[in-house]
Order: sequence, then C-alpha cells, then structure tokens
Amino acid sequence: MVIVMRSGASKKEVGAVLARVEELGYRAHLSQGVERTIIGVIGDERPLEPAQWETLEGVENVVRILKPYKLASREFHPDDTVITLNGINIGGSDVVVMAGPCSVESSEQITDIAHAVKAAGATVLRGGAFKPRSSPYSFQGMGEPGLVLLREAADATGLLMVTEVMAPAEVPLVSQYADILQIGTRNMQNYPLLHAVGDSHRPVLLKRGMSSTIEELLMAAEYILSHGNYRVMVCERGIRTFETFTRNTLDINAVPALKSLTHLPVIVDPSHATGKRDLVDATSRAAVAAGADGLIIEVHDHPERALSDGAQSLTPDQFAQVMGKLHRIAAAVDRRISVAETVTA
Amino acid sequence: MVIVMRSGASKKEVGAVLARVEELGYRAHLSQGVERTIIGVIGDERPLEPAQWETLEGVENVVRILKPYKLASREFHPDDTVITLNGINIGGSDVVVMAGPCSVESSEQITDIAHAVKAAGATVLRGGAFKPRSSPYSFQGMGEPGLVLLREAADATGLLMVTEVMAPAEVPLVSQYADILQIGTRNMQNYPLLHAVGDSHRPVLLKRGMSSTIEELLMAAEYILSHGNYRVMVCERGIRTFETFTRNTLDINAVPALKSLTHLPVIVDPSHATGKRDLVDATSRAAVAAGADGLIIEVHDHPERALSDGAQSLTPDQFAQVMGKLHRIAAAVDRRISVAETVTA
Amino acid sequence: MVIVMRSGASKKEVGAVLARVEELGYRAHLSQGVERTIIGVIGDERPLEPAQWETLEGVENVVRILKPYKLASREFHPDDTVITLNGINIGGSDVVVMAGPCSVESSEQITDIAHAVKAAGATVLRGGAFKPRSSPYSFQGMGEPGLVLLREAADATGLLMVTEVMAPAEVPLVSQYADILQIGTRNMQNYPLLHAVGDSHRPVLLKRGMSSTIEELLMAAEYILSHGNYRVMVCERGIRTFETFTRNTLDINAVPALKSLTHLPVIVDPSHATGKRDLVDATSRAAVAAGADGLIIEVHDHPERALSDGAQSLTPDQFAQVMGKLHRIAAAVDRRISVAETVTA
Amino acid sequence: MVIVMRSGASKKEVGAVLARVEELGYRAHLSQGVERTIIGVIGDERPLEPAQWETLEGVENVVRILKPYKLASREFHPDDTVITLNGINIGGSDVVVMAGPCSVESSEQITDIAHAVKAAGATVLRGGAFKPRSSPYSFQGMGEPGLVLLREAADATGLLMVTEVMAPAEVPLVSQYADILQIGTRNMQNYPLLHAVGDSHRPVLLKRGMSSTIEELLMAAEYILSHGNYRVMVCERGIRTFETFTRNTLDINAVPALKSLTHLPVIVDPSHATGKRDLVDATSRAAVAAGADGLIIEVHDHPERALSDGAQSLTPDQFAQVMGKLHRIAAAVDRRISVAETVTA
Repeated sequence: MVIVMRSGASKKEVGAVLARVEELGYRAHLSQGVERTIIGVIGDERPLEPAQWETLEGVENVVRILKPYKLASREFHPDDTVITLNGINIGGSDVVVMAGPCSVESSEQITDIAHAVKAAGATVLRGGAFKPRSSPYSFQGMGEPGLVLLREAADATGLLMVTEVMAPAEVPLVSQYADILQIGTRNMQNYPLLHAVGDSHRPVLLKRGMSSTIEELLMAAEYILSHGNYRVMVCERGIRTFETFTRNTLDINAVPALKSLTHLPVIVDPSHATGKRDLVDATSRAAVAAGADGLIIEVHDHPERALSDGAQSLTPDQFAQVMGKLHRIAAAVDRRISVAETVTA
Repeated sequence: MVIVMRSGASKKEVGAVLARVEELGYRAHLSQGVERTIIGVIGDERPLEPAQWETLEGVENVVRILKPYKLASREFHPDDTVITLNGINIGGSDVVVMAGPCSVESSEQITDIAHAVKAAGATVLRGGAFKPRSSPYSFQGMGEPGLVLLREAADATGLLMVTEVMAPAEVPLVSQYADILQIGTRNMQNYPLLHAVGDSHRPVLLKRGMSSTIEELLMAAEYILSHGNYRVMVCERGIRTFETFTRNTLDINAVPALKSLTHLPVIVDPSHATGKRDLVDATSRAAVAAGADGLIIEVHDHPERALSDGAQSLTPDQFAQVMGKLHRIAAAVDRRISVAETVTA
Repeated sequence: MVIVMRSGASKKEVGAVLARVEELGYRAHLSQGVERTIIGVIGDERPLEPAQWETLEGVENVVRILKPYKLASREFHPDDTVITLNGINIGGSDVVVMAGPCSVESSEQITDIAHAVKAAGATVLRGGAFKPRSSPYSFQGMGEPGLVLLREAADATGLLMVTEVMAPAEVPLVSQYADILQIGTRNMQNYPLLHAVGDSHRPVLLKRGMSSTIEELLMAAEYILSHGNYRVMVCERGIRTFETFTRNTLDINAVPALKSLTHLPVIVDPSHATGKRDLVDATSRAAVAAGADGLIIEVHDHPERALSDGAQSLTPDQFAQVMGKLHRIAAAVDRRISVAETVTA
Repeated sequence: MVIVMRSGASKKEVGAVLARVEELGYRAHLSQGVERTIIGVIGDERPLEPAQWETLEGVENVVRILKPYKLASREFHPDDTVITLNGINIGGSDVVVMAGPCSVESSEQITDIAHAVKAAGATVLRGGAFKPRSSPYSFQGMGEPGLVLLREAADATGLLMVTEVMAPAEVPLVSQYADILQIGTRNMQNYPLLHAVGDSHRPVLLKRGMSSTIEELLMAAEYILSHGNYRVMVCERGIRTFETFTRNTLDINAVPALKSLTHLPVIVDPSHATGKRDLVDATSRAAVAAGADGLIIEVHDHPERALSDGAQSLTPDQFAQVMGKLHRIAAAVDRRISVAETVTA
C-alpha cells in the first residue's frame, strides 16, 4: 500500500501516519518527492482498507499494491485448476459445453432438450428450478420438482447437471440433485450464499455480477475458496453498460484477463451476454477463440413458448449448427470440444 | 405491448403473431404503416415478457407500454405513503435523518455515537451487525451481539434503529431487534430475501442496487409489497458509473423521478453515494433540496479507526454542522427535519 | 509515479527500470516489500505516461501520484476564479442563471424568450445557432443568421449571451457575437477546437463530455488555460449511465468535487442532465444547494413545437416558478441569484 | 412512432395529439387499451423527435418504431459493401489487417515498422500524425511532416495507409497523403468533421465513440453517407464501462450486431479496446471468429519508448505471432487474411 500525502502536509501529519502504520505492525518507507511525500507500507496489506487511511489528516490518497485476493490468484496457484467430473475435465485442454433451457418446465420438455443437446455434443445439462425473476408476477421456477426432473434428464442422457441455488438454506437440497451449483449474477455478492456453497464442497459455477469488476468476481471466488472448496469456475455472462441494443455487453477482454489472473476455469455465457439468439453463434465462437474453457448456452425446443428467456434461446437445430462451427474454432486454437467418455452417470 | 413486425414480414407471419396474441387471451390491434406493420396487444400485459415475442418469425422488436410494477406505482396509490414509527413520520412533510456507524464495534462506540447523533438531531440510529464485505478477510460484523448493542443504544437514546439483514433465515432474528430492516445494495435482487422481509411485515429500507435501474428498484419494492407489507422506503445510494473519483455516482435525478413514479418514501444515502466524507455535506443538502424524504448518513467517532467505511464517515462534530445546514435547506423547501416528539422508545 | 514490480521480478528487471528512470532525468526510490518491490519516481511526473512503463519487463502496474492538470488545480490557484462580464460575477458569491431555447428559430421566438427569462431573473441568454444533432436529417441550426438574432435579443434585454461553437474555423465568427463561447459535450475532447477557443481569449463555458471523468474535464480545461485564457467555466450536464428513465444522470457529486479540485466556476445544466422538464425544478435546486456557481436551463415558449430539445424545455411560466424557489435555496446557502446591475449592454 | 397516453388522459388531450399528428402530415391510428390509449403515427417518422411529443398534455411516453438511419441500414442496401483499394477488398470474404504505431515519430521508426508489419502480412499501414491527447503537455503528433513520412513508408512497402484527421480544415491536407481517413473515437460526433470527410469522397474508417451506442455509430456513418460518400468502415474500438482492469471494454456483441444492421465493413481495434498488449492476441482472434472484416492493431518496434500508447503496442515479433494464429481462425470461419496482390502502390 502506498500512502500519498497532500502537497504541503505537515511533519506532524506525516508523523501521525507513520505512527499508525507501525502501531498496526507494518513497516513504513518514507519517500520525499518534489511535490509530495509518499509512504510505502510494507507487510501483508490485504487486511487493510485503503480508503480508511484517507481519513488521516494530510493524506491525499492511498493506493493498494497487492491484489486483494490470494487463493484465486495465479501467483498462489500457477497451474490451471482442472475440475474432473464424471470423466469430463473442466479447465484443461478441452472446451466444455453446457446447454439447456433457462427454466425446467416439464418432464417432457427437459428430457427432449437433454437428448437434443447431448446429441449435438453438450456434456452438461443446464436448467433452472429456482429462478430469480425481476417481477414477482413472473414464473419463479418449479422448485424441488424441477430438480427431480433435471436429475432424471441428466441421468437418462449421461449428462452432468448444473442448476442455480438462490438461498443458503437451499444449498443442501440443491446439492442432492446437482453436479454443479450455479451462483447467479444477482447473487455474486450474496455472501451468506457464498459461504454456504463454500461449505458444501460441491463444484460451483460462479457467474460474474452484471456490474461487478473482474477483481470483485475473483474476490467472490475467494470467499468460496476460503472454505477449502477449490472446485470453482468463474463465468463471464455480460456486463451492464449504456448500450441498449443488446441485453448485456459480453466482456470478451475478461476471458484472457481472467486466464492470466486466476487458475480457475473460465466459462462464458453468450445467451445472457447478448440476450438475442441471433448473436449467440458469433459470440460463442469469439469466446472459444479468446480462450474460454467452456460455454453455457440456453437451448429450448420451443423458444417462443418458453416460460423465461425465450428470446435468447437457440432451438436444438440452431444449437447443433453452432456446435459444428465451434469444433472448427476449437481446433484452430489447438483445443477440442469436450466429449463424454462414458455415458453412465 | 406493441409488437413491431420487420419490414416485409409476410401475411403468414403477421397471422401467427395475431393467433398467439389471441391464444393467450389478449386482443390484437393491427396497424399497417408505410414501412412496418405494428400490432397492439390489448389487455393486462404485465405477465407477458416482451423479449419472448421477438422469437416469433417476422417480429423485429416488442415494446412494453405499461409499467411492470403496480402496487408501487403512483397510479395505484396516488397519495404519499407515510410510515409512522414511534411518533416519527417517514414520507410526510418531515425529513427524517438516520445516522450512525457503518458497523457496530462495541457497546461504548455505539452508545457514544447514538448520543451524539441524537444530540445533533437524528431520529433513527443506523449500524451494521451483519456486514456484506467484498473480502472474506475483512471484518464481517459482530452478528447477534451487535444487534443487542444496537438495540440498547437505541433504547438509551429514544432513537429508532435500522440495520441490515442479509439472509432469509436471519429475518426473524433481526426483526427481534430492529425497527426497520435494511436490504443492502448487493441484495436488492435477492428474491428469497425480499420474500422473507415481505412476510415479516416489518418496515423495510430497500437500497437501490448499485447498477439497478429505477424501474428495477420499484420491481424489487413490488416483491415486498406483494406480500402485503406496504411499509417500504426506497433508498438511492449511488450507482456505479465510469467515474472513479467518487465511489459511486449519486443519481440525484432519481429523487424527483421516484417521487413522481411511486408513493413510497425516498431516502438518500450520501455516504455510500460519494464514498468521501468531504462530499457528504453538499450532497445531503442537494438531496433535501431535490425532495428526499430522508437521509441515512454514516457517522463514526473515530473514522480513522473504523472497522469499515471510515473514509466516508463524518465525525459527530461534522455531522452536527451538516445538520445545521440541512435545517435551512429543509425550510427553503417548506419542510422541516424530523424531531423526536417523545424520548421513550 | 510509483512503479510496482511483479512478484519475483529479477534484479536485472528492477535494474532496467531504475536505469530508465534515471535516463529520463528522474530520481528513483527503491522500496523492497514482502511480496513486491516498488519504485518511487521523483520529479515532475506530468510528462510521463504511466501505462508506458508497464511495457518494461517485470513491471506489474504503475500508479500516478500527481494530478495530470496544473493550471486548473486549486493547488496552483487556491482562490476562486471570478469571471466578471458586464457587471455580472460568475464564480463569486452570486449564482448566475443562463436560460433560453435550445435553438434560435426566429427573431420573434428568441426575442420573446429573452424578455421572458430576463423578467424571471436570468442574466445570460442561451441559444444555439450551430447545433450538433445526432441525425443528419434533423434541424442543424440557423447558422450565422441565428447569431445575429441572438445578439439582437441579448442587446435588447441587456442579457449576456452564450452560444455553442463547433469547429475551430468558426471561432472568430462566433466570437463576434457571443459573450461566452460554449463547447458542447460532444466536443469536450475536440482538441483543435479547445486550442482555438484558448487562443480566442473569450470566456468559455466548457461542458463535460457525457462519458468523461472529472479529471478529463479538468484536462480539457487545462488545454484552454494553457493558451493563457483563464476565463473558463466547467459545466456538469449529466453523464451517460445504464439508467434509461432519464436522458443522462446528473452527477451531483461532481459539483462539490469540482469545487474542491479546481478554482474555476462550476455551472450545472439540469435540462440535459435529466432530459425531462418535470425533473428540472428539483435538480436545479439540488445543484444550487450543492454549491453550483450557476445554472444553464432550457426555456422555450412553445416546447411542443421546438425544433430541438422540446421535451426538456421549461415554459417561461415554469421557469419563473423555478426561479422563485431558487432564490430561497440560494439564501439557505448564503448566496443570492445574480441580478443584472445595469441594463445597458 | 407510437404515442402512449397516460392512464386517464382526457378525450381533449387525445384529440390534441391526433390533431398535431395530422397537422404534420401523418396519419394517426388510435388503439384503445384497458389501461392506456395508444396512437400509432403512420408515415416516415425519421424527421420526428419522439421526446418532443412527450411535452403534449396527457402523453406518457413515445416510442420510435423505425431505425433513425437509412443509408447505413441493411434494409436499404442488403448486400455487403466492399471497398476496393489497390486490389485489397475491405468488406468481402477477406479479413484485412491494418497495423503500425500509434504515432509516427521518425522516418526510421515508421519505415522499419512498415516493413515489419508488411512482412507479417498486414496490408494497411496505420500511424498518427495528428494526435488527440488528453493532456496538452503530451506529444501532439508530428503534423504534416508525419503525413509525408507515413506516405513514404506506405509507398516503400506497397501498403495502403490510414491516418486520423481531427479538424474539418485539415481534411484536404490529410487527403493528399492518406488512402483512408480515420475519424477517432473522440470525434465520432464531431459533425462538421463528418460533413467534411463526407464531402471529401475519401474512404473513411469511423471509430465508435467510446460511449456511443451502436445506433449512434450508424447515425454518424449516416452523416458521411448522406454526402454521397459510401466508402465507410465502422470500427469497434472498445467502450467505456465501470471495469478498470482494462482501458476499455471490447464490445464483441457489436460485431455480429453491426453485421446484421448495416452493410458497411466492420473493423475491430483490439489495441484500444483492451489497452494491454497481453490481451491483443486473444481479442484479435475473438474479433475474427465473431465475423469482423478487419483489424487495426498497434505495433511499435520499441513499445517502451513509444511517444504514445506503448502499453498496448505489440512488438513486430509479437505481431507476427498474432498473425500466425489469425490465419487459422480466419480459415475456421471460411475466410482468409487479406494479402497484397500487387506490391506497387
């Protein structure tokens, strides 16, 4: 941490800052510039809150030097984390594709879609049983019966299954059914929930908050990792910007940025990141070309009748076409789309 | 809802949209323009999801006409909602001031601050016992012992008390101590939590998500209202923008906008909205001048030693000075700063 | 400037950075931390580009310590700049109100409005003759004939006159007519234009770019000041955010922030900052309460027929009502709305 | 255009709107809903300003139906525009790569880089002679001597040359040297400049404003097209968001979005869109995978000594590696990187 004193800060003010640094067990390093005095704080600065120091007299601003996360960082864990589930490697050289409807609506719906996405080459089934909806008057998901249907469809097809959990108290229930627990964008900073999935020791797909920075995403991952649960994937799903043509803005920069900052697998959700199914094809290719370790794509057999997110869902046929192109892009970056080695769950 | 067909949409495509409108029990109103056909959908459109319709062949885009919230709207409830607690009116002609530390840290700290803010004219004590922190390594709040201390300090001073609740399962506990339940910015779309505080029938201070629109804020309020809990205040606390000089950007437009759109009291949090205590004075005045029904301000007796948010906390002396100026601004808009009529809790 | 080396940076890498610092005539101050080495660069860092240094091997990131502007800063010029024009002080204890239509449309229109805003207490007439419009098919302004009409209306009423200039080549022409040259939001970083108005030595109203930071605004002012033209006002006119209910988001934080960072007068444009005339009243009050030195407000006698920006224009009656309330707010912060001492131009 | 009346709007208010619609030569189509009356306006709505209508009594909001641009739209010109220059096709099946330094600094520098990027497969040389810099104290470019050097380097290598023009008065001068005129991000809404390059009938590379929407970008293109200059390329170069890890956020969604909305070639600038050279490789691949018609990449032989933008510049070796990978991505989407058919300029 570097503390920048105001121009003309008094000796007494500088002295008070130095005293405070040492009182907290850090060493201070004074550097007298032409216009400013700066004070380097030496020691593990992570527990310190930079803004706090700006309340001391004579302090102009304070700059953090170390990243505030540790377990999630490349420096702490230089090699890629590979999460192996049912023979599928997430985070290795393969690119995993997760697909399915926004919401599970019926047994027939989820089973049909599961077979279709399996046939097209997906290895993980996605689907929501507990749905965060902006309106209290919208369909809120089937709840536990939906979890049962998702599990049955996954078992029938040999797919892994990922589904969202929305409240700490629901973690045990959802963990009975899901292979991967999803934390949705609105819950990225729901700390009781992060603690709970950390304790669950289940694999977690952590979606970036729609207005969270890359650093905040990694801090949210750090919450889960700090419970000893290291099987965390981070997911870029579009951020909120001033652009209104698309539902969100896919932050493609975040893919290589995350790959350099963290060892955790990086997944991209082109469906939410665009909000328009016509844009899913191109952005899926972009994500794989940029180095994503996986994709999560919304597929619905009747998008126009979907109970949620129909506008961004591909039909099974469209999804199969997207997959065909993704194989070529994956090959062009010396990777391959993950395939299920064994069908038994 | 208005459905805009693509230029050159076929009769068959138009027909399919009309059929779907009628299948769902709405009436359709066809309007043939020079370049486009548009279809008005007549009936209560709130359960419909506009984007959904864009998956139908030939549809270019779909525009919502009605606001998606109802109970929160001025149209539904033209008069201002006034929440009366212990003789204090929130949402009427008085301007209520809530003040206190970010976190409760000790009995002495919270009691001293409570007396100080009371002396300066606050009527509600704020303080966090459960703290959402971006780092798992930061102080997470005292938990229930903090609630006890907050209640004691409120009772000792005759102040009302507001504190944050972070998980649905904690709502009953926090409700035992708090007069007002606060939903924090990171939880504005934590729907299980909104349902839980809705069921609690406790007064709620609902903070705007840092990247939520005004409409989304009112939709979150609608969640609570839909449980029959009508004692909801909405709180503008700064939004996330590209500007980095301040922690957030206080959306002052939102104050008159909310006053026109909803009957619920509108509170402003200048501490989080700026992140800098030097800016709290001016922005507090601005909020009252713009029509806010209340303020929630962070005050700490030793900001430089606060366990959280010290940088944006006023000292009791600074707070007293701010209050002095607020009285004058309130008078200039024909209001007054709320005063505690009775001291007994 | 502080250069943070990567964890594990080699001695050779550190040495190369030190050598480069000294080669450019600066002194380096080495600080060896537990996890990082940091290098303080001592000397006037303004000509240095921090990002540049990140290309050196072993450098993790580089932090600027000094503000990049000088002439615009409070440190350079601690006292408020007061611009005196025709007996009107801008930047002193008075609050100046500029008002008028978005575009000048006819002699009758501008004369009528000039008399109306004068009667209501404005001291500066605003109006556009050269209009930046997002569509090439929209009215682009009357051009020079509009300047003539503006001047005539100003002279007839004893008002000062501000109008926008859009191209360097037009600066001499506009300077013949205008008392104050306006740089519009889209041109805040039009550097040839900033150079030209700097050279003109005319008073300048510099509008903040709709997505420019406070620092960038002051850097744009610095361009003008660097030509020896010190009569610059900076204008907060709303920034672009994700919120769609309003046209822009009035950054009220910027008012006290600018007042602390710069000595230049700070003007607020509530018309563009909201885009809705219903919100102009409340936000005008907020601006004055927050310490603005002036307001620029759109007024049109027939908003529904205005050739541009009708939606955010007040009628003369509405403007008079707003002014009435502003007098009270100004008094509550120990200021007064500027009045024209002499009527002769 | 659809006009939505407020709930409870009177017959007189509806009548006044209808009268105004007809007065302007449009036909009105009345649609009486359960809670709202809506009025469809039939005719070419492009000259109308929706917000204007919101000033009429009883109007709640107004929604545009048609896109405000015409010449730039796919509907007006369904086939891709292909700009052919010196045997190079921009906008066809080839992907064109433009490369070079941010600023031209010397004859040796630009010649060396030109040869290097030519050898690696670029077909257009980029470089700035007139530089928009946020600080008046930074290097502002060499001016005309820089144009001479750029032309010489282009001629010596058989590359086309693109360079920025910043003021209307400089268009003739820059046109003498450049094959393609670049409009920079800060000038996207500099309308006098758009008019001037429109009149020049030179090919134009129009960069998206850093906080401009896709629609505004196409409106800026419309300005140029409206002068009969149809050789316009639009360039996604990153938008300004809340994320601070990268300089800008590459809006990869904009690539397929623009390809669907307009016939104009779409270029991507991964250097400015990331601000970090480590991210240029991955995002270049993403852009081509998403369907970009070209890339513009900053390359400098000594990035650490570059007079501007060093942090985001590739070395020639790094650029050659990027190009190697781009060939594979282009092939995976059935395209190829453009090659110079003839070396003579």
